[in-house]
Amino acid sequence: MNKVSVTGIGMTAFGKKEASLKTLLMDACLEALREANFPKIDAIYIGNFMAGSLVNQEILGAIVANELGLGTVPAFKVEGACASGGIAFRQGFLNIQNGGYENVLIAGVEKMKHATTEETTRAINAAMDNDSNEILAGLTFPGFFGTVANRYFYETGASKKHLAMVALKNREYAVNNPKAQFRKPATLEEIMEARMITEPLGLFDCSPTTDGAAAVVLSKGDKGVVVRASAQASGPTQMQEAEDLLSLPAVRASAEQAYQMAGVGPEEIDVVELHDCFTMTEILSIEELGFFEKGTGWEAVAQGLTKHGGKVPVNTSGGLLSKGHPIGATGLAQIIQIVSQLHGNSCNQVDGAKIGLAQNLGGTGAYSTVHIFEGVK
Amino acid sequence: MNKVSVTGIGMTAFGKKEASLKTLLMDACLEALREANFPKIDAIYIGNFMAGSLVNQEILGAIVANELGLGTVPAFKVEGACASGGIAFRQGFLNIQNGGYENVLIAGVEKMKHATTEETTRAINAAMDNDSNEILAGLTFPGFFGTVANRYFYETGASKKHLAMVALKNREYAVNNPKAQFRKPATLEEIMEARMITEPLGLFDCSPTTDGAAAVVLSKGDKGVVVRASAQASGPTQMQEAEDLLSLPAVRASAEQAYQMAGVGPEEIDVVELHDCFTMTEILSIEELGFFEKGTGWEAVAQGLTKHGGKVPVNTSGGLLSKGHPIGATGLAQIIQIVSQLHGNSCNQVDGAKIGLAQNLGGTGAYSTVHIFEGVK
Repeated sequence: MNKVSVTGIGMTAFGKKEASLKTLLMDACLEALREANFPKIDAIYIGNFMAGSLVNQEILGAIVANELGLGTVPAFKVEGACASGGIAFRQGFLNIQNGGYENVLIAGVEKMKHATTEETTRAINAAMDNDSNEILAGLTFPGFFGTVANRYFYETGASKKHLAMVALKNREYAVNNPKAQFRKPATLEEIMEARMITEPLGLFDCSPTTDGAAAVVLSKGDKGVVVRASAQASGPTQMQEAEDLLSLPAVRASAEQAYQMAGVGPEEIDVVELHDCFTMTEILSIEELGFFEKGTGWEAVAQGLTKHGGKVPVNTSGGLLSKGHPIGATGLAQIIQIVSQLHGNSCNQVDGAKIGLAQNLGGTGAYSTVHIFEGVK
Repeated sequence: MNKVSVTGIGMTAFGKKEASLKTLLMDACLEALREANFPKIDAIYIGNFMAGSLVNQEILGAIVANELGLGTVPAFKVEGACASGGIAFRQGFLNIQNGGYENVLIAGVEKMKHATTEETTRAINAAMDNDSNEILAGLTFPGFFGTVANRYFYETGASKKHLAMVALKNREYAVNNPKAQFRKPATLEEIMEARMITEPLGLFDCSPTTDGAAAVVLSKGDKGVVVRASAQASGPTQMQEAEDLLSLPAVRASAEQAYQMAGVGPEEIDVVELHDCFTMTEILSIEELGFFEKGTGWEAVAQGLTKHGGKVPVNTSGGLLSKGHPIGATGLAQIIQIVSQLHGNSCNQVDGAKIGLAQNLGGTGAYSTVHIFEGVK
């Protein structure tokens, strides 16, 4: 099995962008290819969720191959809802680790800000199983994670304040990230009192719609930040199928596989990016990833254990909540933050970070990828 | 490198279906899994193009994993326009050939018949580069291949009658295929006089919209029909970028790779399924696949060389034109026809067929896959 490492990263600023989806995608790809010194690319993998429904544009792989003059290189798009980027990365990884590829380009993109709230809500709902009663009953993503939060409060004693502390931490990190969508400082009071979206989730508890793109070059060998583990798992696609509302089985399974593959445990991870599509999801995920016992994530947040100086800094990029969430790009943007941390040149740098983890969720728990990285020695 | 073979196939009848997209997908998957004797599945790959825009349903991989009780198995959707099925198949193949997987499930699905012509036309146009002048000018798929046909007529001396002979051949094959969408016999005159879609392409020159699903189980080893080659290439995404309107560089490149990988040439292929989205595309493709010299495909058709008793029978299933074209399922339906031919139990069986080829096109030439199979010895 070949070693695989990240030799180039590129990312647009996140937010509302006038540039076309194609331009965003090319900007990120060119930046990553330049950093990797333009190696011969053997395959292209594009993570994207809703360019078909919101921009009427598919064949993104071939478009990248053509625009960049990469010839007849094999290319395609990977869709795994909000985990599209993480899954695309894993396919590229597998085909270098096991196959004959030397260098691959993996990119993710989404353009959402031009669409109406109705259009976006409908498109996002395609990440749930629409052939089910709960969709007919009106379930949405904030509805799902709002229900989960209420149950979490009931079972653990946590409250809306703990969710707000997650939002505040991620906003404080985003203030220092020049590519983040929301860089205006916020206070705990402001977050607590913000407009309600779905009880108990307010505006700051929900990730925004975002335009943006991110790209990574993966290469055979260990000349860059090495991919120590790449894991993926599936989970329930309907709320009514969940054994336990407070579990994300795909996150747990992908984390267990990744720790085994890397030969490290959660205690050896120095920095984490995880899928905080909602504040509640971050609390569940720090538990499922093994950093804290089940049902205790809210206490860890309250004690500052997920910040600098705590047990493990989480979402130093600002996370989906404040950096933004251009769906297909998100998994790669997380990986880029971890790679930057391991290079020692990130915003909100964690001193001496050697091993980092990126976790990307799709749907209400339908997909999860976990990647573990080790810095250049 | 591991040998890889097809150990199970499943396919719904093609046409207008009342069943939901999920039901179609499950029916095909269950049939394939049953034939393979329900092995432990290590990964799921779903080929699909427009379920997001026409059915508002993504996360198809996780839905299959959940419905079939396959646990946390990794899964995702592959999008490569009309080549989504062929590309999905290739990813599954690669991860058995080079990786640690023993058995994978690959399925493709599309549900289109419920949508209006306007909705479908718009969704299909996502398979062209919409950030281009030619789309603003109103180019569509029939417009593209109609222009190509006019140029082909001008350069070679072919005429609308040669296109009609392709349509007639494929209809004659479909009459014997119980799963085909169009089984009513047609005459050359009827085809020639049918309603014009885009000069010179009439109704019978264009593949229809179709509902349907197809699935394949691939397994390590050589107990089934062996995959001798799997190749994929990209080509131009805009008409204005084509060096030559009568070339499909992605088809040629993927065919060359596949022949090299299999160690066989076109003269050793006994039966072919290729991507006849339009009659014109079949004529170009028999040239690009190396069965006939460039510019002579129309003469081969006129001489009956692409039928039983000719050089190589092409599209014995009825092809996209008459079997139907449920986009994401098409690449797998082609493979299923070749596998059946090599098992000796196909409709329009080619006596003694030992080696078969399946070619799947995406967009106006943006993607092509070529797979070569060898029957059980």
